[in-house]
Amino acid sequence: MSTLSIATAAEVFELLREDLAAIEQEFSRQSASNVAVITDIAQYLIAGGGKRIRPLLLLLAAKALGSTGHSRIRLGAVVEMLHTATLVHDDIIDEADTRRGRPSSNTTWGNSKCVLAGDWLYMQAFSAALEERSFHVLDLLISLTQQMVEGELLQIEKLGHLINEEEYFDLIYRKTACLFKVSMQLGAAITPHDFGDAAIIESQLGEYGRNLGLAFQIVDDVLDLTAAEDVLGKPVASDLREGKATLAVIHALERGTGADREAIRTVLADRSFTSVSHPQILEILRRHGSLEYAMDTACAYAEAARQSIADLPPSDAKRALMWVPGFVTSRDR
Amino acid sequence: MSTLSIATAAEVFELLREDLAAIEQEFSRQSASNVAVITDIAQYLIAGGGKRIRPLLLLLAAKALGSTGHSRIRLGAVVEMLHTATLVHDDIIDEADTRRGRPSSNTTWGNSKCVLAGDWLYMQAFSAALEERSFHVLDLLISLTQQMVEGELLQIEKLGHLINEEEYFDLIYRKTACLFKVSMQLGAAITPHDFGDAAIIESQLGEYGRNLGLAFQIVDDVLDLTAAEDVLGKPVASDLREGKATLAVIHALERGTGADREAIRTVLADRSFTSVSHPQILEILRRHGSLEYAMDTACAYAEAARQSIADLPPSDAKRALMWVPGFVTSRDR
Repeated sequence: MSTLSIATAAEVFELLREDLAAIEQEFSRQSASNVAVITDIAQYLIAGGGKRIRPLLLLLAAKALGSTGHSRIRLGAVVEMLHTATLVHDDIIDEADTRRGRPSSNTTWGNSKCVLAGDWLYMQAFSAALEERSFHVLDLLISLTQQMVEGELLQIEKLGHLINEEEYFDLIYRKTACLFKVSMQLGAAITPHDFGDAAIIESQLGEYGRNLGLAFQIVDDVLDLTAAEDVLGKPVASDLREGKATLAVIHALERGTGADREAIRTVLADRSFTSVSHPQILEILRRHGSLEYAMDTACAYAEAARQSIADLPPSDAKRALMWVPGFVTSRDR
Repeated sequence: MSTLSIATAAEVFELLREDLAAIEQEFSRQSASNVAVITDIAQYLIAGGGKRIRPLLLLLAAKALGSTGHSRIRLGAVVEMLHTATLVHDDIIDEADTRRGRPSSNTTWGNSKCVLAGDWLYMQAFSAALEERSFHVLDLLISLTQQMVEGELLQIEKLGHLINEEEYFDLIYRKTACLFKVSMQLGAAITPHDFGDAAIIESQLGEYGRNLGLAFQIVDDVLDLTAAEDVLGKPVASDLREGKATLAVIHALERGTGADREAIRTVLADRSFTSVSHPQILEILRRHGSLEYAMDTACAYAEAARQSIADLPPSDAKRALMWVPGFVTSRDR
């Protein structure tokens, strides 16, 4: 395989096929508890799928530095478990009815059990991570989790309110980019290598993850506004319905007429499209080029991600990492 | 101070006064977040008080082995933070209106914020524990937390159902005794000493904690049945109202007439005293000596706790540890 050609999805998948399968197994094994309801909820969540993008990033970071050990499988499962734990608690908070096109776990098992199932997944993730016997790994994971939880609380505080770009970027960093960053850092942290100063390499890979995560969440937020419900697997414009202003909306708020601003404010305050319709909002966003602005911003972060790893030596994993940002910004769900 | 005389509450308090004050400060410092609502909820919980029995056990275990360092303060705050985190999530699950005679945090801030505040307290506790740079400490804490969360889930599964003594002891081990045990183990783990094999001493102190914790919870459950609401700071017989069968109730179920069993079953299934009154249940328990049976069992565990530390060299801390079980079994709230 040439290290000059551009990677394809099939090639990336082939590169990681065995590792991703091993991570699924590890995730499933780690989620088996002697308390039946925990195993039930965990298996339901695992079966729900998801893009597994966090383990994928961790694997690529580790492989780009020549990883051969089992740590990347274990920690690949850990980052997906942490991600799943946050989803379980977020669904309770958002009173979500569906997740990935299926009933959400709280709809099926009730809030009480899901609070505890989320707690259990957090602890199980830390328990597995603890097996690495690395304080640095634990520092990264605990600090990450705290930032994510704080982000979710900040989001609740801001629901229904107008926020500015700075606040938006802080929220999406905590919500998504932070875990992308740590997944990349972990891939580096567990891989002994001699490609240069370990701290610098870990930080560059972390930067890649942060930039990619910001791009990923901006695209997610645009898709929430524009994609069809059957493609997305959740109701359209659910962010606005929950009182969340995302990048395109913030852009339109700053550039729109008084009437435009009033329309957006109304939807955020009502948390519904009863007074102002979804097509009306889309018309405002299109008129001000707000959706393009958001997508352009996402593409700039995607490019920044690629730049962050320019110094890495050539490898199939590096080519895959160069491919991921384009995949993230061009997806339709 | 003679090491032969029996300790008094005043003497124990005096022995630990400075350390307990330092732990309050540490707990308060650790609970300050840059997200205001977290600090608010945490400060509210700290101000709510509580017996601080878990830090007290950790301090006594450490002092009995000659501790001089700061670790006992840090980890004293950690065990109280973990305990507080479980209370926050438990109150959501039990839909509790009050806690320690005040509105519960979920009543004040709502479930969503309290799910996240509980998560944050867990993470902050681990983050502080991580500063010890001891894998053994982390192993104890993470495994403990998982057992507690599993216990709470098991409890939900059993609500409204008749359980046997074995199931009851498993539940109260997870709910209370497990954290008492780990508090004692941590006190030993962080204290270098030459009183003998460190693993054996840690295990003996752990046994003390386990036995004391079982005694503590049995007494708590008896008080829930018998104490007055204004003394207890929560509604009487709330366990029965929530469908929880505790030791005295299990005893009466196994020894009662058909009519007695039916009355108890009805209350557990109804989760209220509408068909069968609280005094009727107390009459059944008294007729079968069930409350005495539970108290006798608690006293046996209290005595087992004292026996567990018989080998410790004499010290003020040991005398205090000998005093605690009697305090726990003779309290009225």
